[in-house]
Amino acid sequence: MALLDDLNWRHATKAYDPSKKISPENLSKILEAARLAPTSSGLQQFRVLVIESPELKEKLRAGSLNPACIQDCSHLLVFAAWDAYTTERIDDIYNKTTDVRSQDRGRYDSYTNGLKADLAQQNEQQHFEHAARQSYIALAMALAQAAELKIDSTPAEGFDNQLVDEVLNLKALGLKSVTLLYLGYSDPERDWLAPLAKARNSLEEFVIYPQN
Amino acid sequence: MALLDDLNWRHATKAYDPSKKISPENLSKILEAARLAPTSSGLQQFRVLVIESPELKEKLRAGSLNPACIQDCSHLLVFAAWDAYTTERIDDIYNKTTDVRSQDRGRYDSYTNGLKADLAQQNEQQHFEHAARQSYIALAMALAQAAELKIDSTPAEGFDNQLVDEVLNLKALGLKSVTLLYLGYSDPERDWLAPLAKARNSLEEFVIYPQN
Repeated sequence: MALLDDLNWRHATKAYDPSKKISPENLSKILEAARLAPTSSGLQQFRVLVIESPELKEKLRAGSLNPACIQDCSHLLVFAAWDAYTTERIDDIYNKTTDVRSQDRGRYDSYTNGLKADLAQQNEQQHFEHAARQSYIALAMALAQAAELKIDSTPAEGFDNQLVDEVLNLKALGLKSVTLLYLGYSDPERDWLAPLAKARNSLEEFVIYPQN
Repeated sequence: MALLDDLNWRHATKAYDPSKKISPENLSKILEAARLAPTSSGLQQFRVLVIESPELKEKLRAGSLNPACIQDCSHLLVFAAWDAYTTERIDDIYNKTTDVRSQDRGRYDSYTNGLKADLAQQNEQQHFEHAARQSYIALAMALAQAAELKIDSTPAEGFDNQLVDEVLNLKALGLKSVTLLYLGYSDPERDWLAPLAKARNSLEEFVIYPQN
């Protein structure tokens, strides 16, 4: 029941204690959980940026729904997805995949050729939307790993994507920001959500058993 | 290290043993992990459909990249997201939230009014894209919970969304299919991916530490 315990324990932290920092070992575990997340066609079409410096946080917080969280959290993660799929990016990943499996390069050509043909029918916005979806799997794994370590976290979509992309120079990396994840330790005095009950649809509402 | 162990253990299973079924207790845990996933603004804007019957699987498998997996897996989960955000849906969730927290209804009006105004600027496709993203967090939690229970799984986007929506009558439920998740136990004779090394970008490639 470990994961369920962790998911019941966690909540979207609304205020962080700025004096408490995550250890490097624990940060590494959170990043590793994100890295191990599965992705569509194994493309790993996103990256995670780690931000700790007050100066950089200051530049990123404008337009955020929770600017104090950005400033006070121990570490701010930015999940950023590929801005488009390209033949080069797909080939690069599959070359790495065959190399690590000691397979001949091109082993998956019949699959990747179909993938490239499908993606050629889509525009860059569709590519990005698809890549962005995958990054939510990694966001979830990072959230779950943080909870296992009793580290507080807040996933956040309410920020100025354009500002974050510019400050972090993401265009030059072929990336666009998708979500933020604040990590650290709750300030119980100011974290108003901490004592409130978790609100979820019941299993009866959430799960549907279709008839044949 | 439990989650990291589980993530290293799992792989995208390519063939299932049709004689092996998941216990009801374990299925409940997987659904519970999905239910507990956080969602943007707490809207829980997706549902999970559970399919076990061979007749229904038969109707859903056409157009799938892995039709044998659909037939042979123990249970097929369909993650389906809201087709649009509406005032009624948002109010319904927030009324439940205030009720479970013994707060006055309308306690979050200043927030939800802003949310409704923002969403009114978007079209239904944008609503669905945003709702669909959230469902990947729950997909990830279900995957992680399955791995903790040593249950094999395969997340899948390669299927005929229109067919699945029609067979499951999702339009009447205000939902559209996003992903499938096959659950069960690998058939080691046919699961070609099982013995192969996991392929991921290194932490050095995956994680970026921006300069100020």
